[in-house]
Amino acid sequence: MKLLEERIKNDGRVFPGNILKVDNFLNHQIDVSLLEAMGEEFYRLFKDSGVNKILTIEASGIAIACMTAYKFNVPLVFAKKNQTKNISADVYTSKVTSYTHGRVYDIMVSKDYMNPGDRVLIIDDFLANGKALEGLIDIVRQAGAEVVGAGIAIEKCFQPGGKELREQGIRIESLAMIKSLDNNTVTFC
Amino acid sequence: MKLLEERIKNDGRVFPGNILKVDNFLNHQIDVSLLEAMGEEFYRLFKDSGVNKILTIEASGIAIACMTAYKFNVPLVFAKKNQTKNISADVYTSKVTSYTHGRVYDIMVSKDYMNPGDRVLIIDDFLANGKALEGLIDIVRQAGAEVVGAGIAIEKCFQPGGKELREQGIRIESLAMIKSLDNNTVTFC
Repeated sequence: MKLLEERIKNDGRVFPGNILKVDNFLNHQIDVSLLEAMGEEFYRLFKDSGVNKILTIEASGIAIACMTAYKFNVPLVFAKKNQTKNISADVYTSKVTSYTHGRVYDIMVSKDYMNPGDRVLIIDDFLANGKALEGLIDIVRQAGAEVVGAGIAIEKCFQPGGKELREQGIRIESLAMIKSLDNNTVTFC
Repeated sequence: MKLLEERIKNDGRVFPGNILKVDNFLNHQIDVSLLEAMGEEFYRLFKDSGVNKILTIEASGIAIACMTAYKFNVPLVFAKKNQTKNISADVYTSKVTSYTHGRVYDIMVSKDYMNPGDRVLIIDDFLANGKALEGLIDIVRQAGAEVVGAGIAIEKCFQPGGKELREQGIRIESLAMIKSLDNNTVTFC
């Protein structure tokens, strides 16, 4: 998606350790016009897949998923990290290893909001090692629902998540695909 | 706002300890049509206030704030909880006591995204003791920006946050105002 790639070129910042910061338009300050265009693009890509639910994970996936759910006119569910007092014990859970934050955490979705027959489009901001996406797929399948695919804002193609999950038959559509962040420069595929 | 109050009546669930769960339409599964109506209502209420930025806090405020920012056509900034590797050290921070989660946490906003001259509308899902809202107001003021008001989905009027902050001159508009959750029943003001 040209619009997102241009924005990454112009406003993204690269830091050592293959970190791409898109804090100023995607996951701290958010440009909602860009988000709307991204939601429209996900709708164009998956509109014939019978999507009846959007699933994402807190926190930085929520805004993108919200605008996508708006375009599909279907409910949005966001997986929560960690147990809180305000979530039912009756949840599907999966363990996710975060390389960014250097820890393992539980993600959870209430059993009330994911059901057999649901056709779920998973939305997230980044795909790198694919651990968060694997956890979300695991939860959808525990519920007996179907993953119709994953819509990703930015995929780091030099990390293995996208390749591995595509080999497992998951349809992944990434709006910006990054080949390399070497020399503090963003190179797209 | 009638639509939200009706939804709370129909789908909200009350638990001991004055806990109102709106998990099935507002903060776990999200009805984006309802969200759009809420964003429109916040726009109607604050459209003459010169709002140029929406501020919320992760995670459950993000979707409401996203749809509100969409209606205002201004950027959304969400305050983050805890320090992560991916956020600049150059941040405004404030301490927030969470009664729900029984702990004190830091919230932060990058100094890049909150500036003198900004006219900020704060959006959040709940207002009870007002600690999160106080933290967000503190951050806006540290930046030399102005709080034009706060748009809240659900205010628990039997807890002191709303009254205290209104007495300090903050304009607070809550779409549903709850007088009591006694006997597991929602009573609006």
